[in-house]
Amino acid sequence: MTHCESVCIVGLGLMGGSFALALKKAASAQHITAVSRSTATLEGAIAAGAIDEGTTDLAAGIEPATNIVLATPVRTTLRLLRDVGRHAHPGALVLDMGSTKVSVCAAMEELPVHIEAVGGHPMCGKEIAGFGAAEAGLFRDKPFALCRLSRTSSASLERATALVEAVGARPLVLGAAEHDRAVAAVSHLPYAVAVSLVAALAAAGDPIASALAASGYRDTTRIAASDVEMMLDILLTNRGNVLECMDEFGAQLAVLREALHASDEPVLRRLLANAQARRSGLRLT
Amino acid sequence: MTHCESVCIVGLGLMGGSFALALKKAASAQHITAVSRSTATLEGAIAAGAIDEGTTDLAAGIEPATNIVLATPVRTTLRLLRDVGRHAHPGALVLDMGSTKVSVCAAMEELPVHIEAVGGHPMCGKEIAGFGAAEAGLFRDKPFALCRLSRTSSASLERATALVEAVGARPLVLGAAEHDRAVAAVSHLPYAVAVSLVAALAAAGDPIASALAASGYRDTTRIAASDVEMMLDILLTNRGNVLECMDEFGAQLAVLREALHASDEPVLRRLLANAQARRSGLRLT
Repeated sequence: MTHCESVCIVGLGLMGGSFALALKKAASAQHITAVSRSTATLEGAIAAGAIDEGTTDLAAGIEPATNIVLATPVRTTLRLLRDVGRHAHPGALVLDMGSTKVSVCAAMEELPVHIEAVGGHPMCGKEIAGFGAAEAGLFRDKPFALCRLSRTSSASLERATALVEAVGARPLVLGAAEHDRAVAAVSHLPYAVAVSLVAALAAAGDPIASALAASGYRDTTRIAASDVEMMLDILLTNRGNVLECMDEFGAQLAVLREALHASDEPVLRRLLANAQARRSGLRLT
Repeated sequence: MTHCESVCIVGLGLMGGSFALALKKAASAQHITAVSRSTATLEGAIAAGAIDEGTTDLAAGIEPATNIVLATPVRTTLRLLRDVGRHAHPGALVLDMGSTKVSVCAAMEELPVHIEAVGGHPMCGKEIAGFGAAEAGLFRDKPFALCRLSRTSSASLERATALVEAVGARPLVLGAAEHDRAVAAVSHLPYAVAVSLVAALAAAGDPIASALAASGYRDTTRIAASDVEMMLDILLTNRGNVLECMDEFGAQLAVLREALHASDEPVLRRLLANAQARRSGLRLT
């Protein structure tokens, strides 16, 4: 891990905090620093042994770093990239962890040419936000999408890969547009659906229903409790793909509704059996 | 537990098997028998210490029993109730574990008057079916809906309550119509949604998406792998309520879609924040 001399993590929430803890555990970086808006969070992270030092000053934090990891909501990352371009030292690698990649990679292309950049997205998470929820094992064996820019050199991609492997994740190199289409289907649509399930139950206003809610409801709606600002950024920066997925989902739900409305048992059985076969065949961790 | 002298469980799948294991563990019944179509399942259940003896002959199984627990899919239960009426001995209590209650309770009202009956529905489950998935702790601390018929005496309700408490569940007495409306919102709609999420991903045909699927997709779609015949019975015997819930859900999803389509950030933030607050406030086990 020759390229992890020093790492500065910007944002010490669930993702940034877990990244710091994982790097420390792997002993893969000589020096880990962080930038956070909150002095209390920085002090907590130092006390937890996640970082060596911290600052609330972005410029001061990133200037000495050879690796800069942006672990903020997508629209904050877009805003920060301008300052990163001004303050990062030549040859520094910038990697982000935002959940959508087209807008972030486009903004990264505008960085000064002496700064290296790769778009990143770890495929894991929790519905609880903040450093308090961070854990060293969050990325273990999880896919970590890496998106090359047109200007990304093989050496830069190798450095990003080394960082991602250091936290225990499985790097998966793919295009930003391809990434955003895929996560719309497996992450952003399920979130929109979970939000609507919760809203539908609230609209029904049935206290008995809440009393009878069990593991099925718990699991289908878990991600509706996700951080609002993070999800807002995700939906707004992946709007076209999410709208398309919502429409495809709506069409599938309409087919199921029609079969049920008609009490069409053969069609209904086929729809349920197809979903069962596909879902049972998926190996998800 | 004076009323649990003998219990005959009809159907040794996940629910019936778990009920038998839980009763055995609590040592609440003097004699536990089972009726199954499969001799191998009966032998396995005896070997696992779940039941004392078993038979493939419904009449032979239920005739000597003071308590009969029907643990079959809803439409099988509806069909079996006629035979149960012919063969159960006077004073026997019939309790079912079907996921919809209006049709089952209506069929129970037709039982001969010398047979006691209560509709039941444990609010728990797994997406894996069969005796192999059964576990003694499945019902522990979970709500177990109990629906009185117009003819159910207080003594019969007490017997049903004792059985349910013996397997560790929390009895919750409510009306059949009320039950079916509530479970449509918290169980059957989430299932329809999970099936449609899986179908939408299949329709997109994007192999990258499956590779990026993480815990959010895993949890929102878990119940799409549920037993098809069981779910078919549930949807068809709770059709009106499920259609109504699908329409309410569709309306909520349309509101979210419209706000995203318009990039209406304040409305979007409010919708996400409402769902987050409601979901975070739910205590689900």
